[in-house]
Amino acid sequence: MRFLSFHCDYFKYNVKKKSRSKFIEDLSETNQIGTLNDCLVLFITVEKKDEANDNLLINALTEIEKIVHQLNINNILLLSFAHLFGKLSSPKFSFQSLKLLENLLSKKGFNILRPPFGWFNEIELKAKGHPLSRISRIID
Amino acid sequence: MRFLSFHCDYFKYNVKKKSRSKFIEDLSETNQIGTLNDCLVLFITVEKKDEANDNLLINALTEIEKIVHQLNINNILLLSFAHLFGKLSSPKFSFQSLKLLENLLSKKGFNILRPPFGWFNEIELKAKGHPLSRISRIID
Repeated sequence: MRFLSFHCDYFKYNVKKKSRSKFIEDLSETNQIGTLNDCLVLFITVEKKDEANDNLLINALTEIEKIVHQLNINNILLLSFAHLFGKLSSPKFSFQSLKLLENLLSKKGFNILRPPFGWFNEIELKAKGHPLSRISRIID
Repeated sequence: MRFLSFHCDYFKYNVKKKSRSKFIEDLSETNQIGTLNDCLVLFITVEKKDEANDNLLINALTEIEKIVHQLNINNILLLSFAHLFGKLSSPKFSFQSLKLLENLLSKKGFNILRPPFGWFNEIELKAKGHPLSRISRIID
């Protein structure tokens, strides 16, 4: 897994169009648009190598918690993102990993927003400009 | 060189703080804030291996032109960005490469905005949600 994070004043998404992914999450009445304020926006690639890593989620959780504690924020946006130069896992595995990560972070008390998997979104964001406002990490 | 592009309705930046880079571009009266509408936003990493690549700029130019022609836009935002999992070139080489790329694209008739090198920026953007709205490329 690898991610790029932006510390944002706000993040908004609006589902526009189905991607060509082999796994597409169903749209509901509540997941087609969303807004999160004062948040960590995580653009996340689940990688092929992650499929054999039993520690993936616990290591991801640890790393994300470190960052949000440093930034002192409670809101986290989890966005599946294929454009971070990593070799992608199967779409199903990516979706399941993000869903499990969402559940783990929710149980820790964080407020999570996760746009539906497999859709193109219009996004709007305002990101802060301090030394920790952009971070990239590889989770092994 | 590697880049991540967002096709944006708008992009705004506001210089906030000096980074720890060994090369910092001077601020002027005109480069501390900027806005560009209907644009291709390029988050660009100049890589160590680029320092030995004589074809870097012409290959980058070719690839960027392909994308903007597909999207039918004339405005390009060039942002130095260290968080795309590439091994960075020297700051001086990165700056010079971005500056040369800016000049080449300007000569081709594109309208270019380039935030000053070596500073943390607050950024705000709205990105479209179509199949070409996010693209990543490695330029060899």
